Amino acid sequence: MNLKSFVEAPRFSSFIMGVIIFNAILLGLETSQVAMAHAGGLIVLLDKLCLAVFVVELLLKLVVHRFRFFRDGWNIFDFVIVGVSLVPAAQGFSALRALRILRVLRLVSAAPRLRRVVEGFITALPGMASVFSLMALIFYIGAVIATKLFAYSFPEWFGTLGRSGYSLFQIMTLESWSMGIVRPVMEVYPLAWLFFIPFIMVTTFAVVNLLVGLIVNSMQDAHHEEENAETGAYRDSVNERLIAIEERLDRLLEQQKAK
Amino acid sequence: MNLKSFVEAPRFSSFIMGVIIFNAILLGLETSQVAMAHAGGLIVLLDKLCLAVFVVELLLKLVVHRFRFFRDGWNIFDFVIVGVSLVPAAQGFSALRALRILRVLRLVSAAPRLRRVVEGFITALPGMASVFSLMALIFYIGAVIATKLFAYSFPEWFGTLGRSGYSLFQIMTLESWSMGIVRPVMEVYPLAWLFFIPFIMVTTFAVVNLLVGLIVNSMQDAHHEEENAETGAYRDSVNERLIAIEERLDRLLEQQKAK
Amino acid sequence: MNLKSFVEAPRFSSFIMGVIIFNAILLGLETSQVAMAHAGGLIVLLDKLCLAVFVVELLLKLVVHRFRFFRDGWNIFDFVIVGVSLVPAAQGFSALRALRILRVLRLVSAAPRLRRVVEGFITALPGMASVFSLMALIFYIGAVIATKLFAYSFPEWFGTLGRSGYSLFQIMTLESWSMGIVRPVMEVYPLAWLFFIPFIMVTTFAVVNLLVGLIVNSMQDAHHEEENAETGAYRDSVNERLIAIEERLDRLLEQQKAK
Amino acid sequence: MNLKSFVEAPRFSSFIMGVIIFNAILLGLETSQVAMAHAGGLIVLLDKLCLAVFVVELLLKLVVHRFRFFRDGWNIFDFVIVGVSLVPAAQGFSALRALRILRVLRLVSAAPRLRRVVEGFITALPGMASVFSLMALIFYIGAVIATKLFAYSFPEWFGTLGRSGYSLFQIMTLESWSMGIVRPVMEVYPLAWLFFIPFIMVTTFAVVNLLVGLIVNSMQDAHHEEENAETGAYRDSVNERLIAIEERLDRLLEQQKAK
Repeated sequence: MNLKSFVEAPRFSSFIMGVIIFNAILLGLETSQVAMAHAGGLIVLLDKLCLAVFVVELLLKLVVHRFRFFRDGWNIFDFVIVGVSLVPAAQGFSALRALRILRVLRLVSAAPRLRRVVEGFITALPGMASVFSLMALIFYIGAVIATKLFAYSFPEWFGTLGRSGYSLFQIMTLESWSMGIVRPVMEVYPLAWLFFIPFIMVTTFAVVNLLVGLIVNSMQDAHHEEENAETGAYRDSVNERLIAIEERLDRLLEQQKAK
Repeated sequence: MNLKSFVEAPRFSSFIMGVIIFNAILLGLETSQVAMAHAGGLIVLLDKLCLAVFVVELLLKLVVHRFRFFRDGWNIFDFVIVGVSLVPAAQGFSALRALRILRVLRLVSAAPRLRRVVEGFITALPGMASVFSLMALIFYIGAVIATKLFAYSFPEWFGTLGRSGYSLFQIMTLESWSMGIVRPVMEVYPLAWLFFIPFIMVTTFAVVNLLVGLIVNSMQDAHHEEENAETGAYRDSVNERLIAIEERLDRLLEQQKAK
Repeated sequence: MNLKSFVEAPRFSSFIMGVIIFNAILLGLETSQVAMAHAGGLIVLLDKLCLAVFVVELLLKLVVHRFRFFRDGWNIFDFVIVGVSLVPAAQGFSALRALRILRVLRLVSAAPRLRRVVEGFITALPGMASVFSLMALIFYIGAVIATKLFAYSFPEWFGTLGRSGYSLFQIMTLESWSMGIVRPVMEVYPLAWLFFIPFIMVTTFAVVNLLVGLIVNSMQDAHHEEENAETGAYRDSVNERLIAIEERLDRLLEQQKAK
Repeated sequence: MNLKSFVEAPRFSSFIMGVIIFNAILLGLETSQVAMAHAGGLIVLLDKLCLAVFVVELLLKLVVHRFRFFRDGWNIFDFVIVGVSLVPAAQGFSALRALRILRVLRLVSAAPRLRRVVEGFITALPGMASVFSLMALIFYIGAVIATKLFAYSFPEWFGTLGRSGYSLFQIMTLESWSMGIVRPVMEVYPLAWLFFIPFIMVTTFAVVNLLVGLIVNSMQDAHHEEENAETGAYRDSVNERLIAIEERLDRLLEQQKAK
């Protein structure tokens, strides 16, 4: 009981947010050679201390909420991030060590405003699922065609399905698509534009449709909320008035009959 | 009768979808030299088997639906794609062989969700027809001007109408337009920006208008559907109420007259 | 009288549209060295014939409409374009000769659909005037600052106000802004990003606001038109009904008084 | 009293606007070596005169409005800009001297139309604050990861947190992200795309959400203003009519009772 109110107190979450920000600064300092040369030991020690605070925090929350802890997606998010941080501390993969900075993402779960933005992003995703799968299909087909046609002459760009997929992603973002990729390809296969220009048009159009879908969806959500409040009130009042008029008319009719 | 229920059964279309996906994986494996070296014969055999399944499927559907088969655009789409796959199997054009992957597009006609997305794309096209023809006109004019002015000094970029069109498309996508094309051109023709910068502005503005048109159209569609349901119900109820009030008033007037 | 009906007949405008398209093809052929080598004389002759048709057409319209001819902006547009075509035919500027292709723009004034698109573009412009002038101001200030700071070390990019303006336009379109311009500049002036990154952010934000303004405007126009039709009808009917009810009530009150 | 009407007269603000524009032209001329060689002394003199006019203007306004002067944000804006212009005149920093052109920004506070546009921009900012802080977080995390992973092999791009941040900004704008940065990095770290492609997707998606938020907000503002005028009038009239009907019915009921 005492523990629960301690864990759920605003002071406690403010303290954790402070530790996250302090940890973020520490991890930033770790990238500086000057800072590491002068105070490397201290920085690493403080970083471990921060991690220890996170572990204790999660253990406390686990004790308080028990299994309900895992019902909230954000708790699972925190749990995984802190868990991942514990693994590479034991081993020595530099890439995994770099992932420790992901701990700073806990700021999102700690700050309600950022949380709402991310939740907004995530709720927008399912509506885009079918356009996404269509784009995945187009990419797969495009990558197979590009690999079949251009793998021999341009192994670096289109040698395997993976390379073709990466190059097509680059082309979709319009980065150096012509001067960097398509013009050189066209010197060997003069008709290559017949593949690339439709590919650009179709993927760009699909991206635009994603954007349009997003705008329409969030407009409707906003419209709904706001409109319903005022219009609903007006409509209710009209309905009530009309009902009152009908009642009085009924009384009038009865009175006349009574005579 | 028996055949019709067999062809229209959900199991049958699930099976076909499975074959399409299996075929997609096969065609992907064909691009891998390792896979082809170890199991090339098997992959080609399975690919032919998939094609055979598609041919049998379409024949069955043709038998069941007869001429009505061609009334659905998606059926024609399937028919053409499978038909195209049969042609290059006989001949040896590598480009046509690469098109066999288009068979994977049958996934779109098989999955209702993707179908709806593509149908949405297609219904959006007619509304953009006039902006598209305007852009085609601008491109044609731009290509003629660019060819006339720059063909002599920059034959690779503006040597023919086709090359100019391609270069102008690249410039419209803003890819390397300045460092790659316009700055070198301006070294020979210092006033070339008088052509290119208005071209960029006009085409970008036209593209933006396409986007705006798309957004406005799909907003209106969404607005219509949703609004009409609720507002229509409310308006109907107000009308009914008002009619009921009028009727009662008429009865009152008649009763008074009767006295 | 006879002449007016001749000029305003659909056949006449179809014929003119045909001549414009034929002329467009001729001007395209002129860019082809092969076509010019084989039939150069014929092409030039037919081009002059087309121009003659346009001159006669405008003269006929001038005779029919007289001064009212110049009240329609599209007529002035046609008049200027054909007029410009007559000037360079006499002289020999290659740049002016290239402008003859602008005659094809007459297709816009001839085809009502394209006309409406262009009119839509033009009516959208005044609403964007203040954002445009703000951007012009930002560009001017940016060009002066860039010229003052970087003219000495990078005369080719920022040597004069004009060159700076062009380079800043390139940077606004994000083309090679970093690898092409800002990274080289930062090798001399390491703090140059303090100028360029805010410049990119401000101009991009202004462009986005232009886009948002366009969308909001055309949504409102579309909303207005559509909404007003149906909603207006409903509101009128409610008003009429309410007035009818009031009238009957007035009659009731009078009848009761009369007793 | 006399001074106040003098300062607030339209003529006075028109005169100040004229001086601002004249000053803008002077500062533009200062960038031209030819102009400075022929009339450098005159230009500098006139520039100082303009500055003197601004100082006098602000002093007059300060005398008239006293402390209320600082309640208007635009006045503080003018005050700071003119103040900054006075400092570098004494010292010799060329960068600060270049900032004198910012005086031209006073055109924004002087022209009500530009003022409204900028105010529109500024009121849009708070609504984007949470997305902005999320993006700052993503950038910080991305910069730390990139520095940890790539600082050793690519010190020029990812050597420090600052350099990584700049390179990631460049990548977010999609400028040369693949050919310029990621492809060279992938030659050393083949899995680098696992970091860069998600980074591009997340930041692009966040930017798109900023855009969507902007559109939805300004649509709602526009909707509100317009809708409320007409709809409000209609609703008021319906309410008045209904009240009038109720009153008459009450009178009818009373009259009948009275009998």
